[in-house]
Amino acid sequence: METTFRIFKQVPRLIFGAGSLRRIGELVPPKNEGDYYVYVIDDVLKNGVVEDSLSIDENDLVEWFPATRKEPSTIQVDELRDKVIKEKAGKMPLCIIGIGGGSTMDVGKALSVMLCNEGSSRVYQGWDLVANPGIFKIGVPSIAGSGAEASRTAVLMGADRKFGINSDHSMFNAIIMDSSLIKTVKKDQWFYSGMDCFIHCVESLEGTMINELARGYADKALELCKRVFMGNGDDDMLMTASYMGGVSIVNSEVGVCHALSYGLSIELEYRHGYANCIAFNVLDEYYGKHVASFREMLKRHDIQLSTNVCSNLDDSAMNRMIDMTLRMERPLTNALGENWKAILTRDKIRELYLKM
Amino acid sequence: METTFRIFKQVPRLIFGAGSLRRIGELVPPKNEGDYYVYVIDDVLKNGVVEDSLSIDENDLVEWFPATRKEPSTIQVDELRDKVIKEKAGKMPLCIIGIGGGSTMDVGKALSVMLCNEGSSRVYQGWDLVANPGIFKIGVPSIAGSGAEASRTAVLMGADRKFGINSDHSMFNAIIMDSSLIKTVKKDQWFYSGMDCFIHCVESLEGTMINELARGYADKALELCKRVFMGNGDDDMLMTASYMGGVSIVNSEVGVCHALSYGLSIELEYRHGYANCIAFNVLDEYYGKHVASFREMLKRHDIQLSTNVCSNLDDSAMNRMIDMTLRMERPLTNALGENWKAILTRDKIRELYLKM
Repeated sequence: METTFRIFKQVPRLIFGAGSLRRIGELVPPKNEGDYYVYVIDDVLKNGVVEDSLSIDENDLVEWFPATRKEPSTIQVDELRDKVIKEKAGKMPLCIIGIGGGSTMDVGKALSVMLCNEGSSRVYQGWDLVANPGIFKIGVPSIAGSGAEASRTAVLMGADRKFGINSDHSMFNAIIMDSSLIKTVKKDQWFYSGMDCFIHCVESLEGTMINELARGYADKALELCKRVFMGNGDDDMLMTASYMGGVSIVNSEVGVCHALSYGLSIELEYRHGYANCIAFNVLDEYYGKHVASFREMLKRHDIQLSTNVCSNLDDSAMNRMIDMTLRMERPLTNALGENWKAILTRDKIRELYLKM
Repeated sequence: METTFRIFKQVPRLIFGAGSLRRIGELVPPKNEGDYYVYVIDDVLKNGVVEDSLSIDENDLVEWFPATRKEPSTIQVDELRDKVIKEKAGKMPLCIIGIGGGSTMDVGKALSVMLCNEGSSRVYQGWDLVANPGIFKIGVPSIAGSGAEASRTAVLMGADRKFGINSDHSMFNAIIMDSSLIKTVKKDQWFYSGMDCFIHCVESLEGTMINELARGYADKALELCKRVFMGNGDDDMLMTASYMGGVSIVNSEVGVCHALSYGLSIELEYRHGYANCIAFNVLDEYYGKHVASFREMLKRHDIQLSTNVCSNLDDSAMNRMIDMTLRMERPLTNALGENWKAILTRDKIRELYLKM
């Protein structure tokens, strides 16, 4: 009967609703003379509705993050940290506000931690390696699905691996779920990011490391995803699904799809949501009925995925991808049980990659 | 499009699972020389499994709260506060741990606040009247349904009203959801408390003050309640339902049933869950299909509710009950709209009470 689930961490304060970004003043710590905030904002939002909803002061720093280009890296985070310290001569910001998708929010989380902990962000990739609390931080998803708003993970690309900083200190202190921001998103991005949530739910529900609370979140999020992508669900539903899927995954674990998609992101520089879609599409033997639903959604929204994406990779690239996948021990244990190494062999992983 | 929902507050850390009370050491602040905790525990748990799971020190205070007798009052909370201060000569506890149903957890929350704020707890009944943060506190539901583990409300009986202390400072810092504790509960109590959750969900879903996030929680909690009380759902599901129903109600509002049940608790000293059942059973015109489900659950579990409960009340008692109901402006606005006073007149309220 004894359980060994981790302590379930939750963002303590959130504001929900279309237009609610304008209420950010209710969440930020009030400034005194000389105080400033750092905004990290996905650069697709430049010259858009977001700035109108914020009251950015002269003294504040705004970093437009090029999230669509590729996954955020430890190098980018370290450079951003150094830039903030240099520009403000070491004076710390009062608050960091991350506005965007999972990548941009993760950069906001990582910056918060790296302003208060020494060395490179590489050092903190792993579990509970962050000693000092970070700067107060607020997350604002402008695209839904990653669940980064709910999680204590900031996923970053290192030299040879994609890996999260996982710490109580890398969770947001508050989030704003303003579904009106989703209207800014292009259809394909909206789809890939939404599928990140769908896949979180599937991996959570089909895995062994789940409890009834996490199942409650994942069940509801999956239902809402289906209403959005297979029915007539709205942006509020997608925002709720993303959050609940994120909460579920924090308290359970991802699975085979994420383990494979990390390899694609490393070698092909695919963005996370897209890499997940490419991988999920070949996982019939693990997530059968859900893969069928996924294909129905692809069709319904007229989304074309690339094919033969690994056909031009040489052996060493393929081996790096396989190594990356095999490093995902916890997700693979969740999906396939303790005996996963006998099931997901190097040959099997290669076979799956070649199917994509 | 603008929303006016309150900031949604959530308990930042929780542990879920049968047997998880034994993990309380992961959540309490560590003691130094002379430090102590206060345990407020429902006295039905005396000599039971709860003490075995805790490591109570000599220096700690244990208050066995007589929760089954009646609803907790401001007088009890004030007396308990004075007792703690006297016994420890003013030294504050490091942590307060409330273990029981909604009443006992609410006493734990209120004690935490009242050790750090002057005067009687009566003064703080209302919204956001608490100035100073309370003592660090942990909630442990041993009976499921009230959702008190999730909420920022500590409901207390005053001289002539039943009313909550509602404050960010009256939320738990952490909770433990150990479903094995539910096995200690007698069937009728299990039912009445579970129905508190069912009714929270109905009032939340059927009200106007709801958003998609709160609906997600209420939908899921309602589904789990039905599986538990109309199917073969287990204690983990009931624990999850109670929590999710609580989260939903924090972010929406109760309705007609709670507005009437408070009157019953004041004049007849009915416990909250039971009073809710008595009231809900006559609310066909507001919550039709859900009242039908409720009666099915009553039947299935062979629960007999009292009848004609108000027949011996004199006019002044009836008027106090009606006054109490009419004070519940926000719940009644949620249920019936801005024009609720024209719908729920004194005569109508009397008629409903006389039907119970």
